[in-house]
Amino acid sequence: MERKEISKAVLKRLPGYLSYLKSIPEGTSPYISATSLANALGMGEVQVRKDLAMVSNGGRPKVGYLREGLIEDISQFLGYDNTTDAILVGAGKLGQALLGYSGFEAYGLNILAAFDAKAPIEDQDSKLPIYPMEQMESFCRTHKVLMGIITVPAEYAQGVCDRLIQCGIKAVWNFAPVHLDVPANILVQNENMATSLAVLSMHLQAQIKDKK
Amino acid sequence: MERKEISKAVLKRLPGYLSYLKSIPEGTSPYISATSLANALGMGEVQVRKDLAMVSNGGRPKVGYLREGLIEDISQFLGYDNTTDAILVGAGKLGQALLGYSGFEAYGLNILAAFDAKAPIEDQDSKLPIYPMEQMESFCRTHKVLMGIITVPAEYAQGVCDRLIQCGIKAVWNFAPVHLDVPANILVQNENMATSLAVLSMHLQAQIKDKK
Repeated sequence: MERKEISKAVLKRLPGYLSYLKSIPEGTSPYISATSLANALGMGEVQVRKDLAMVSNGGRPKVGYLREGLIEDISQFLGYDNTTDAILVGAGKLGQALLGYSGFEAYGLNILAAFDAKAPIEDQDSKLPIYPMEQMESFCRTHKVLMGIITVPAEYAQGVCDRLIQCGIKAVWNFAPVHLDVPANILVQNENMATSLAVLSMHLQAQIKDKK
Repeated sequence: MERKEISKAVLKRLPGYLSYLKSIPEGTSPYISATSLANALGMGEVQVRKDLAMVSNGGRPKVGYLREGLIEDISQFLGYDNTTDAILVGAGKLGQALLGYSGFEAYGLNILAAFDAKAPIEDQDSKLPIYPMEQMESFCRTHKVLMGIITVPAEYAQGVCDRLIQCGIKAVWNFAPVHLDVPANILVQNENMATSLAVLSMHLQAQIKDKK
Protein backbone atom coordinates (compact mmCIF):
# COMPACT_ATOMS: atom_id res chain seq x y z
CA MET A 1 0.00 0.00 0.00
CA GLU A 2 1.04 3.59 -0.40
CA ARG A 3 3.04 4.88 2.52
CA LYS A 4 1.21 7.42 4.64
CA GLU A 5 2.89 9.89 6.94
CA ILE A 6 2.97 8.16 10.28
CA SER A 7 3.48 9.62 13.72
CA LYS A 8 6.22 8.46 16.05
CA ALA A 9 3.54 7.43 18.53
CA VAL A 10 2.08 4.94 16.03
CA LEU A 11 5.55 3.74 15.14
CA LYS A 12 6.19 3.02 18.80
CA ARG A 13 3.14 0.77 19.01
CA LEU A 14 3.76 -1.25 15.84
CA PRO A 15 6.58 -3.45 17.23
CA GLY A 16 4.25 -4.44 20.08
CA TYR A 17 1.54 -5.61 17.67
CA LEU A 18 4.10 -7.50 15.65
CA SER A 19 5.52 -9.25 18.68
CA TYR A 20 2.06 -10.38 19.74
CA LEU A 21 0.98 -11.49 16.25
CA LYS A 22 4.11 -13.59 15.89
CA SER A 23 3.50 -15.21 19.28
CA ILE A 24 0.07 -16.64 18.44
CA PRO A 25 0.46 -20.42 18.23
CA GLU A 26 -0.16 -22.40 15.04
CA GLY A 27 -3.56 -24.01 14.82
CA THR A 28 -5.58 -21.03 16.05
CA SER A 29 -7.75 -19.07 13.61
CA PRO A 30 -5.78 -17.50 10.75
CA TYR A 31 -7.74 -14.28 11.29
CA ILE A 32 -7.39 -11.71 14.03
CA SER A 33 -9.52 -8.66 14.75
CA ALA A 34 -8.39 -5.26 16.01
CA THR A 35 -10.59 -5.95 19.04
CA SER A 36 -8.82 -9.13 20.09
CA LEU A 37 -5.42 -7.53 19.47
CA ALA A 38 -6.48 -4.57 21.65
CA ASN A 39 -7.69 -6.91 24.40
CA ALA A 40 -4.54 -9.02 24.34
CA LEU A 41 -2.30 -5.96 24.73
CA GLY A 42 -4.58 -4.04 27.09
CA MET A 43 -4.99 -1.18 24.64
CA GLY A 44 -7.91 0.87 23.33
CA GLU A 45 -9.78 -0.72 20.42
CA VAL A 46 -10.16 2.50 18.46
CA GLN A 47 -6.44 3.20 18.63
CA VAL A 48 -5.49 -0.29 17.48
CA ARG A 49 -8.01 -0.12 14.63
CA LYS A 50 -6.62 3.23 13.45
CA ASP A 51 -2.99 2.10 13.76
CA LEU A 52 -3.58 -1.04 11.72
CA ALA A 53 -5.45 0.88 9.03
CA MET A 54 -2.32 3.05 8.63
CA VAL A 55 -0.14 0.11 7.66
CA SER A 56 -2.42 -2.50 6.12
CA ASN A 57 -5.29 -2.67 3.64
CA GLY A 58 -6.11 -6.21 4.68
CA GLY A 59 -8.81 -5.57 7.31
CA ARG A 60 -12.27 -6.93 6.50
CA PRO A 61 -15.46 -6.09 8.43
CA LYS A 62 -16.52 -8.82 10.93
CA VAL A 63 -13.53 -10.98 9.93
CA GLY A 64 -10.51 -8.89 10.80
CA TYR A 65 -7.07 -9.30 9.32
CA LEU A 66 -5.43 -12.39 7.95
CA ARG A 67 -2.71 -12.79 10.56
CA GLU A 68 0.12 -13.69 8.20
CA GLY A 69 -0.78 -10.77 5.94
CA LEU A 70 -0.81 -8.35 8.83
CA ILE A 71 2.57 -9.60 10.07
CA GLU A 72 3.94 -9.04 6.58
CA ASP A 73 2.44 -5.55 6.27
CA ILE A 74 3.75 -4.36 9.64
CA SER A 75 7.19 -5.92 9.06
CA GLN A 76 7.40 -4.28 5.66
CA PHE A 77 6.25 -0.96 7.06
CA LEU A 78 8.90 -1.08 9.79
CA GLY A 79 11.55 -2.02 7.26
CA TYR A 80 12.25 -5.33 8.99
CA ASP A 81 12.21 -7.21 5.69
CA ASN A 82 14.76 -4.81 4.18
CA THR A 83 18.03 -5.80 5.74
CA THR A 84 20.04 -2.76 6.78
CA ASP A 85 23.80 -3.14 6.93
CA ALA A 86 25.45 -1.32 9.79
CA ILE A 87 28.81 -0.96 11.46
CA LEU A 88 29.41 -0.48 15.16
CA VAL A 89 32.08 1.87 16.49
CA GLY A 90 33.45 1.31 19.99
CA ALA A 91 33.84 -2.31 21.04
CA GLY A 92 33.87 -1.73 24.80
CA LYS A 93 31.49 -3.45 27.19
CA LEU A 94 28.29 -2.08 25.70
CA GLY A 95 29.51 -2.43 22.12
CA GLN A 96 30.42 -6.06 22.69
CA ALA A 97 27.06 -6.73 24.37
CA LEU A 98 25.32 -5.38 21.26
CA LEU A 99 27.61 -7.35 18.95
CA GLY A 100 26.75 -10.49 20.87
CA TYR A 101 23.00 -9.86 20.80
CA SER A 102 21.53 -12.08 18.13
CA GLY A 103 18.06 -10.53 18.28
CA PHE A 104 18.71 -7.68 15.85
CA GLU A 105 18.33 -9.94 12.81
CA ALA A 106 14.59 -10.09 13.43
CA TYR A 107 14.49 -6.32 13.00
CA GLY A 108 16.42 -6.40 9.74
CA LEU A 109 19.63 -5.08 11.28
CA ASN A 110 22.80 -6.70 10.05
CA ILE A 111 25.98 -5.56 11.81
CA LEU A 112 28.82 -6.24 9.39
CA ALA A 113 31.80 -5.29 11.51
CA ALA A 114 32.98 -3.28 14.49
CA PHE A 115 35.72 -0.70 14.75
CA ASP A 116 37.71 0.28 17.80
CA ALA A 117 40.71 2.45 18.55
CA LYS A 118 42.17 -0.45 20.56
CA ALA A 119 41.68 -3.12 17.86
CA PRO A 120 42.59 -5.91 17.57
CA ILE A 121 40.85 -6.82 20.84
CA GLU A 122 41.70 -10.16 22.43
CA ASP A 123 39.18 -12.17 24.41
CA GLN A 124 36.12 -10.80 22.75
CA ASP A 125 33.13 -13.12 22.59
CA SER A 126 31.55 -11.92 19.35
CA LYS A 127 32.22 -13.71 16.10
CA LEU A 128 32.28 -10.40 14.22
CA PRO A 129 35.57 -8.84 13.19
CA ILE A 130 36.80 -5.79 15.12
CA TYR A 131 38.97 -3.59 12.94
CA PRO A 132 41.17 -0.57 13.75
CA MET A 133 39.55 2.84 13.21
CA GLU A 134 41.77 3.59 10.22
CA GLN A 135 39.95 0.96 8.17
CA MET A 136 36.49 2.41 8.79
CA GLU A 137 36.37 4.76 5.79
CA SER A 138 37.34 2.20 3.19
CA PHE A 139 35.08 -0.46 4.74
CA CYS A 140 32.03 1.80 4.66
CA ARG A 141 32.61 2.82 1.07
CA THR A 142 33.26 -0.74 -0.10
CA HIS A 143 30.16 -2.11 1.61
CA LYS A 144 27.98 0.98 1.04
CA VAL A 145 27.06 1.06 4.73
CA LEU A 146 24.31 3.56 5.61
CA MET A 147 23.90 3.00 9.36
CA GLY A 148 26.42 3.52 12.14
CA ILE A 149 26.05 2.46 15.76
CA ILE A 150 28.06 4.57 18.20
CA THR A 151 29.12 2.94 21.47
CA VAL A 152 32.25 4.96 22.23
CA PRO A 153 32.67 7.09 25.40
CA ALA A 154 30.83 10.44 25.32
CA GLU A 155 33.89 12.55 24.55
CA TYR A 156 34.69 10.65 21.34
CA ALA A 157 31.13 10.39 20.05
CA GLN A 158 30.95 13.64 18.03
CA GLY A 159 34.27 12.93 16.34
CA VAL A 160 33.18 9.40 15.44
CA CYS A 161 29.83 10.72 14.22
CA ASP A 162 31.55 13.27 11.94
CA ARG A 163 33.75 10.54 10.47
CA LEU A 164 30.77 8.25 9.92
CA ILE A 165 28.96 10.97 8.00
CA GLN A 166 32.03 11.49 5.84
CA CYS A 167 31.91 7.76 5.12
CA GLY A 168 28.39 8.13 3.73
CA ILE A 169 26.42 7.08 6.83
CA LYS A 170 22.86 8.51 6.82
CA ALA A 171 21.46 7.12 10.09
CA VAL A 172 23.20 7.03 13.46
CA TRP A 173 22.15 4.93 16.44
CA ASN A 174 23.83 6.71 19.34
CA PHE A 175 24.39 4.91 22.65
CA ALA A 176 26.87 7.53 23.93
CA PRO A 177 25.36 9.83 26.58
CA VAL A 178 25.89 13.01 24.60
CA HIS A 179 24.03 15.13 22.05
CA LEU A 180 25.35 14.83 18.50
CA ASP A 181 25.32 17.69 15.99
CA VAL A 182 24.54 16.48 12.47
CA PRO A 183 23.44 17.94 9.13
CA ALA A 184 19.70 18.01 8.41
CA ASN A 185 19.66 14.91 6.19
CA ILE A 186 21.22 12.68 8.88
CA LEU A 187 19.01 11.06 11.51
CA VAL A 188 20.31 10.41 15.01
CA GLN A 189 18.38 8.11 17.31
CA ASN A 190 19.58 8.28 20.90
CA GLU A 191 19.53 5.29 23.21
CA ASN A 192 20.68 6.55 26.52
CA MET A 193 20.67 3.71 29.00
CA ALA A 194 22.68 5.71 31.54
CA THR A 195 19.98 8.40 31.56
CA SER A 196 17.21 5.83 31.92
CA LEU A 197 18.97 4.32 34.89
CA ALA A 198 19.53 7.75 36.42
CA VAL A 199 15.83 8.60 36.08
CA LEU A 200 14.81 5.30 37.69
CA SER A 201 17.37 5.63 40.42
CA MET A 202 16.27 9.19 41.28
CA HIS A 203 12.68 7.99 41.50
CA LEU A 204 13.70 5.27 43.96
CA GLN A 205 15.71 7.73 46.06
CA ALA A 206 12.70 10.02 46.28
CA GLN A 207 10.45 7.10 47.28
CA ILE A 208 12.81 5.95 50.00
CA LYS A 209 13.09 9.53 51.30
CA ASP A 210 9.30 9.87 51.44
CA LYS A 211 9.09 6.79 53.61
CA LYS A 212 11.58 8.14 56.15
CA MET B 1 24.21 19.82 48.69
CA GLU B 2 20.46 20.13 48.86
CA ARG B 3 18.73 18.47 45.95
CA LYS B 4 17.11 20.88 43.54
CA GLU B 5 14.34 19.97 41.13
CA ILE B 6 16.13 19.03 37.97
CA SER B 7 14.78 18.79 34.44
CA LYS B 8 15.06 15.64 32.37
CA ALA B 9 17.10 17.59 29.84
CA VAL B 10 19.79 18.30 32.46
CA LEU B 11 19.65 14.72 33.64
CA LYS B 12 20.33 13.57 30.09
CA ARG B 13 23.49 15.63 29.90
CA LEU B 14 24.99 14.62 33.25
CA PRO B 15 26.14 11.12 32.21
CA GLY B 16 28.05 12.73 29.33
CA TYR B 17 29.93 15.05 31.68
CA LEU B 18 30.69 12.17 33.99
CA SER B 19 32.01 9.99 31.18
CA TYR B 20 34.34 12.77 30.04
CA LEU B 21 35.54 13.67 33.54
CA LYS B 22 36.40 10.06 34.25
CA SER B 23 38.31 9.79 30.97
CA ILE B 24 40.79 12.57 31.74
CA PRO B 25 44.20 10.94 32.28
CA GLU B 26 46.08 11.09 35.58
CA GLY B 27 48.78 13.74 35.75
CA THR B 28 46.77 16.55 34.16
CA SER B 29 45.53 19.45 36.30
CA PRO B 30 43.22 18.38 39.14
CA TYR B 31 40.92 21.28 38.21
CA ILE B 32 38.54 21.62 35.30
CA SER B 33 36.47 24.60 34.21
CA ALA B 34 32.98 24.59 32.74
CA THR B 35 34.57 26.18 29.66
CA SER B 36 36.97 23.35 28.98
CA LEU B 37 34.27 20.77 29.65
CA ALA B 38 32.00 22.59 27.18
CA ASN B 39 34.76 22.70 24.57
CA ALA B 40 35.62 19.04 24.97
CA LEU B 41 32.02 17.96 24.45
CA GLY B 42 31.14 20.54 21.80
CA MET B 43 28.47 22.12 24.00
CA GLY B 44 27.50 25.65 24.98
CA GLU B 45 29.49 27.10 27.87
CA VAL B 46 26.48 28.72 29.56
CA GLN B 47 24.54 25.47 29.54
CA VAL B 48 27.41 23.47 31.03
CA ARG B 49 27.96 26.13 33.69
CA LYS B 50 24.27 26.06 34.68
CA ASP B 51 24.08 22.25 34.67
CA LEU B 52 27.10 21.89 36.92
CA ALA B 53 25.79 24.52 39.33
CA MET B 54 22.66 22.37 39.73
CA VAL B 55 24.59 19.40 41.06
CA SER B 56 27.73 20.76 42.68
CA ASN B 57 28.73 23.59 44.99
CA GLY B 58 32.41 23.06 44.21
CA GLY B 59 32.90 25.59 41.40
CA ARG B 60 35.33 28.44 42.13
CA PRO B 61 35.77 31.53 39.95
CA LYS B 62 38.82 31.40 37.63
CA VAL B 63 39.75 27.95 38.96
CA GLY B 64 36.81 25.77 38.11
CA TYR B 65 35.90 22.52 39.79
CA LEU B 66 38.14 20.03 41.52
CA ARG B 67 37.72 17.15 39.10
CA GLU B 68 37.43 14.39 41.67
CA GLY B 69 34.89 16.39 43.61
CA LEU B 70 32.80 17.03 40.54
CA ILE B 71 32.87 13.33 39.61
CA GLU B 72 31.67 12.52 43.11
CA ASP B 73 28.91 15.16 43.05
CA ILE B 74 27.53 14.05 39.68
CA SER B 75 27.75 10.36 40.57
CA GLN B 76 25.96 10.99 43.83
CA PHE B 77 23.33 13.08 42.11
CA LEU B 78 22.68 10.36 39.55
CA GLY B 79 22.50 7.75 42.28
CA TYR B 80 25.44 5.82 40.85
CA ASP B 81 27.04 5.49 44.27
CA ASN B 82 23.84 4.03 45.75
CA THR B 83 23.71 0.50 44.49
CA THR B 84 20.23 -0.43 43.32
CA ASP B 85 19.28 -4.08 43.42
CA ALA B 86 17.16 -5.24 40.51
CA ILE B 87 15.75 -8.38 39.02
CA LEU B 88 15.31 -9.09 35.33
CA VAL B 89 12.26 -10.89 33.95
CA GLY B 90 12.51 -12.64 30.60
CA ALA B 91 15.82 -14.34 29.86
CA GLY B 92 15.48 -14.47 26.08
CA LYS B 93 18.06 -13.02 23.71
CA LEU B 94 17.81 -9.43 24.91
CA GLY B 95 17.50 -10.42 28.57
CA GLN B 96 20.61 -12.55 28.34
CA ALA B 97 22.49 -9.78 26.53
CA LEU B 98 21.67 -7.43 29.41
CA LEU B 99 22.58 -10.07 32.00
CA GLY B 100 25.92 -10.49 30.29
CA TYR B 101 26.63 -6.76 30.11
CA SER B 102 29.08 -5.92 32.85
CA GLY B 103 28.84 -2.16 32.38
CA PHE B 104 25.82 -1.59 34.61
CA GLU B 105 27.90 -1.76 37.79
CA ALA B 106 29.36 1.64 36.97
CA TYR B 107 25.82 3.04 37.10
CA GLY B 108 25.06 1.47 40.47
CA LEU B 109 22.79 -1.21 39.01
CA ASN B 110 23.13 -4.62 40.56
CA ILE B 111 21.06 -7.36 38.88
CA LEU B 112 20.56 -10.04 41.52
CA ALA B 113 18.76 -12.68 39.49
CA ALA B 114 16.64 -13.33 36.42
CA PHE B 115 13.29 -15.03 36.10
CA ASP B 116 11.85 -16.79 33.10
CA ALA B 117 8.82 -18.93 32.34
CA LYS B 118 11.13 -21.45 30.67
CA ALA B 119 13.63 -21.69 33.54
CA PRO B 120 15.91 -23.49 34.10
CA ILE B 121 17.56 -22.43 30.82
CA GLU B 122 20.49 -24.48 29.59
CA ASP B 123 23.36 -23.00 27.61
CA GLN B 124 23.05 -19.52 28.97
CA ASP B 125 26.25 -17.51 29.18
CA SER B 126 25.51 -15.36 32.20
CA LYS B 127 26.74 -16.34 35.62
CA LEU B 128 23.52 -15.10 37.24
CA PRO B 129 20.87 -17.57 38.31
CA ILE B 130 17.69 -17.81 36.19
CA TYR B 131 14.74 -18.93 38.32
CA PRO B 132 11.22 -20.01 37.40
CA MET B 133 8.57 -17.28 37.55
CA GLU B 134 6.90 -18.85 40.60
CA GLN B 135 9.88 -17.90 42.75
CA MET B 136 9.76 -14.20 41.81
CA GLU B 137 7.44 -13.04 44.59
CA SER B 138 9.35 -14.64 47.46
CA PHE B 139 12.70 -13.56 46.00
CA CYS B 140 11.65 -9.91 45.72
CA ARG B 141 10.29 -9.83 49.25
CA THR B 142 13.31 -11.57 50.75
CA HIS B 143 15.78 -9.26 49.00
CA LYS B 144 13.61 -6.11 49.17
CA VAL B 145 14.08 -5.50 45.45
CA LEU B 146 12.75 -2.14 44.22
CA MET B 147 13.62 -2.26 40.51
CA GLY B 148 12.42 -4.66 37.84
CA ILE B 149 13.76 -4.97 34.30
CA ILE B 150 11.23 -6.32 31.81
CA THR B 151 12.57 -8.14 28.75
CA VAL B 152 9.64 -10.45 28.01
CA PRO B 153 7.68 -10.36 24.71
CA ALA B 154 5.19 -7.48 24.42
CA GLU B 155 2.11 -9.57 25.17
CA TYR B 156 3.41 -10.71 28.55
CA ALA B 157 4.82 -7.36 29.66
CA GLN B 158 1.73 -5.91 31.39
CA GLY B 159 1.13 -9.12 33.32
CA VAL B 160 4.76 -9.24 34.46
CA CYS B 161 4.62 -5.55 35.37
CA ASP B 162 1.52 -6.09 37.52
CA ARG B 163 3.21 -8.98 39.32
CA LEU B 164 6.37 -6.94 39.90
CA ILE B 165 4.34 -4.15 41.48
CA GLN B 166 2.64 -6.67 43.76
CA CYS B 167 6.14 -7.79 44.77
CA GLY B 168 6.94 -4.25 45.94
CA ILE B 169 8.79 -3.01 42.83
CA LYS B 170 8.70 0.83 42.52
CA ALA B 171 10.67 1.38 39.31
CA VAL B 172 10.35 -0.55 36.05
CA TRP B 173 12.84 -0.53 33.20
CA ASN B 174 10.77 -1.73 30.27
CA PHE B 175 12.43 -3.16 27.16
CA ALA B 176 9.20 -4.67 25.81
CA PRO B 177 7.74 -2.68 22.90
CA VAL B 178 4.46 -1.93 24.63
CA HIS B 179 2.99 0.74 26.88
CA LEU B 180 2.58 -0.30 30.51
CA ASP B 181 -0.22 0.91 32.78
CA VAL B 182 0.97 1.51 36.33
CA PRO B 183 -0.21 3.33 39.48
CA ALA B 184 0.99 6.91 39.97
CA ASN B 185 3.77 6.06 42.45
CA ILE B 186 5.47 3.63 40.05
CA LEU B 187 7.91 4.92 37.44
CA VAL B 188 8.27 3.19 34.08
CA GLN B 189 11.23 4.02 31.88
CA ASN B 190 10.86 2.66 28.35
CA GLU B 191 13.82 1.50 26.30
CA ASN B 192 12.43 0.57 22.96
CA MET B 193 15.23 -0.59 20.71
CA ALA B 194 12.79 -1.99 18.14
CA THR B 195 11.23 1.46 17.75
CA SER B 196 14.60 3.15 17.44
CA LEU B 197 15.57 0.74 14.71
CA ALA B 198 12.26 1.26 12.94
CA VAL B 199 12.73 5.05 13.00
CA LEU B 200 16.25 4.73 11.61
CA SER B 201 15.21 2.22 9.00
CA MET B 202 12.32 4.41 7.81
CA HIS B 203 14.70 7.34 7.47
CA LEU B 204 17.02 5.25 5.32
CA GLN B 205 14.16 4.03 3.15
CA ALA B 206 13.06 7.64 2.57
CA GLN B 207 16.63 8.64 1.67
CA ILE B 208 17.01 5.80 -0.79
CA LYS B 209 13.64 6.66 -2.35
CA ASP B 210 14.63 10.34 -2.75
CA LYS B 211 17.71 9.28 -4.69
CA LYS B 212 15.74 7.21 -7.19
